Amino acid sequence: MKKLKTENYKGVRDFYPRDVFFQECIFETWKKTVKSFGFEEYNASLLENSEIYKAKTSEEIINNQTYSFIDRGDREVTLRPEMTPTLARMIAAKKRELSFPLRLYSIPNCFRYERPQRGRMREFWQLNVDILNVKNDKFYDIEIIKLINKILLNFKATSSDFTIKINSRTLLNSVYENYYEFNENEALTFQRLLDKKDKITQVEFSKEYEKITDKEYKDISDIDDKKVKKELSYINEIIEVCKNTGITNIEFDQNIVRGFDYYTGIVFEVFDNDPENNRALFGGGRYSNLIDLFESVKDDVNISGIGFGIGDVPMMNFLESRNLLPEFVNTTDILLGVISDNQKVIDYADMVATELRDQGKNVSINYDNKKVGDIMKITEKNGIKNVVIIGEKECEEKVYEIKEI
Amino acid sequence: MKKLKTENYKGVRDFYPRDVFFQECIFETWKKTVKSFGFEEYNASLLENSEIYKAKTSEEIINNQTYSFIDRGDREVTLRPEMTPTLARMIAAKKRELSFPLRLYSIPNCFRYERPQRGRMREFWQLNVDILNVKNDKFYDIEIIKLINKILLNFKATSSDFTIKINSRTLLNSVYENYYEFNENEALTFQRLLDKKDKITQVEFSKEYEKITDKEYKDISDIDDKKVKKELSYINEIIEVCKNTGITNIEFDQNIVRGFDYYTGIVFEVFDNDPENNRALFGGGRYSNLIDLFESVKDDVNISGIGFGIGDVPMMNFLESRNLLPEFVNTTDILLGVISDNQKVIDYADMVATELRDQGKNVSINYDNKKVGDIMKITEKNGIKNVVIIGEKECEEKVYEIKEI
Repeated sequence: MKKLKTENYKGVRDFYPRDVFFQECIFETWKKTVKSFGFEEYNASLLENSEIYKAKTSEEIINNQTYSFIDRGDREVTLRPEMTPTLARMIAAKKRELSFPLRLYSIPNCFRYERPQRGRMREFWQLNVDILNVKNDKFYDIEIIKLINKILLNFKATSSDFTIKINSRTLLNSVYENYYEFNENEALTFQRLLDKKDKITQVEFSKEYEKITDKEYKDISDIDDKKVKKELSYINEIIEVCKNTGITNIEFDQNIVRGFDYYTGIVFEVFDNDPENNRALFGGGRYSNLIDLFESVKDDVNISGIGFGIGDVPMMNFLESRNLLPEFVNTTDILLGVISDNQKVIDYADMVATELRDQGKNVSINYDNKKVGDIMKITEKNGIKNVVIIGEKECEEKVYEIKEI
Repeated sequence: MKKLKTENYKGVRDFYPRDVFFQECIFETWKKTVKSFGFEEYNASLLENSEIYKAKTSEEIINNQTYSFIDRGDREVTLRPEMTPTLARMIAAKKRELSFPLRLYSIPNCFRYERPQRGRMREFWQLNVDILNVKNDKFYDIEIIKLINKILLNFKATSSDFTIKINSRTLLNSVYENYYEFNENEALTFQRLLDKKDKITQVEFSKEYEKITDKEYKDISDIDDKKVKKELSYINEIIEVCKNTGITNIEFDQNIVRGFDYYTGIVFEVFDNDPENNRALFGGGRYSNLIDLFESVKDDVNISGIGFGIGDVPMMNFLESRNLLPEFVNTTDILLGVISDNQKVIDYADMVATELRDQGKNVSINYDNKKVGDIMKITEKNGIKNVVIIGEKECEEKVYEIKEI
């Protein structure tokens, strides 16, 4: 019979214990930080009815990147490319029972059919953090910025390692309406052009720009319009409050757009300041109409959300480039090597292991009757810190010794 | 625009914080126990090339239950219905670098297109525990039984709650060859019939049985054959050692077969002793040829594996029926209610929250200027144990009080 290949599916990863260790380092700091801000964990299946992405997820993702298929019962199903539509669905389903502000987080795996490259995999894990609130957007907008800052500091990054760039869809919309005088469709086309500005040449940008409008491209702060100025002052107020609490690496950036169509309020991106990797690590924003896309009880309560998603791969790259990951340590504390085939010795070894486990130690037993030197080598190779050898002598005298490697 | 439905995809679950809490209770006890036996965590993508299931996963799963589709690059891909083939692939890929015995665990989600019913969902999580060894099968067979027992005891179940039933594919094969004189195909058909014995009537069973063989159905212990007796004594030895270490609820059961085709050695199932739910909770077995299905370095080392998988849903049902789940507690320790709109008061509240977080407390802030009574209600409703109220007075006097609910 022809043997099977050991390669995994293209663009996804196998996690051996060392890989799990490093991914867990990231997950643990994520969880610890968001829990300290009172966020509670939620989760859902990665299988979703396809329709929930069609309304407000980005055009590019829907057309080119989803994993969608028809199931055995003729349902159109999609492996989630992002978590926010699932969250919105869940909130809408229990709107009456939940109390707001509601702080939720999850670390789902998401799927996008993209060309695998640095920072991008077809399956990735993503910390999703959202506050759902019914009033006082400003305080929750500020909290999200503070939380982002705290996450990165808890990884021992410093404020010189990253910059938080902030903009606002409300601001952009007022520019589209009051300066460019776009209709809704033109505004969307323009926004999608802005979103890919960094990925295309100046010439390409100008060409596309001229197709949409004859107006001169203007710096937003130079636009003399009351609504525009009001929205700009909102962003400046947020920046001001953040600076007062010690977050100095935050700035307004009118080129931040974010890809998802559902954002309505502030949008932001966190940039890596490393000149060799000067790109957005992650971002997010406020969405006010997403939950209303779903059926729910009729009432006057409008739930608005603000959130962000951090991928595990860009996070890992960021930490690696700054040596902020710890050394691998095995979750097993002690390797216990039995250097005998005698059943009595084995029984004694089992007894010692049980005793050590009862003391809270994680103990792995090697029953293969190896030489002491081999047991030592295996212990060290696997990042285990302690070893116990049990042979005839130890069994007879009912003793054992824990040796540190 | 027509609103979207809030129902999730059929047969999968949404996990709100309370659901995550109970699932985490199960995952934590699983992890704590297997780690104490020196098992290390691995993981992999749920997307696998379809071919890896075609060889040795059960016929029923492959034909009727897999989620398989063709991706945008024309690859045939399957959402894993079980984890063992992935594990075998990963072991084969790094055979040279890994040291054996290797103890691995994972809690993957798996997918099967089945009719949703009690204990069965289309997506379920499953603790997978495996020992990969190159010699001394017996010691590792025993360890796996001990581990199963320990997991259930760590949930505070007692030995009267469950029974471990053990059989052996080697034993069954010797019966097929030496008593029934089956060829390979007949043996497989017979085994699949045995596997569904409990799900069909006696009449149906007899009818199918007579199609395969004319031999009288005989109790295995009555078969007078050297090989059969030898295999039976192996099982009895394992049972004996287990009983000596205090595991009294273990017995030989010749009707235990297990559905997967890849088992070659002992197979076992853990039965719920509850008369209202007297069924197999989970099971596993030894597989000696699975890793060899994959391409790998040529050498004389044959890796054999033994493992089991426990689903989260049957585990939850088992614990619920015995009241072994704890009361829900929110991961947030303190709800801090700001009962003012004054920026100074808000700044003070933020300062208090930061101070409490620095002390390791998880603090959620309500900025919605609610009444004290409402803050109390929200705290209680959400299973949060403590509350802090910050108003003008607290801000002025720079004091605060943590009140237990």
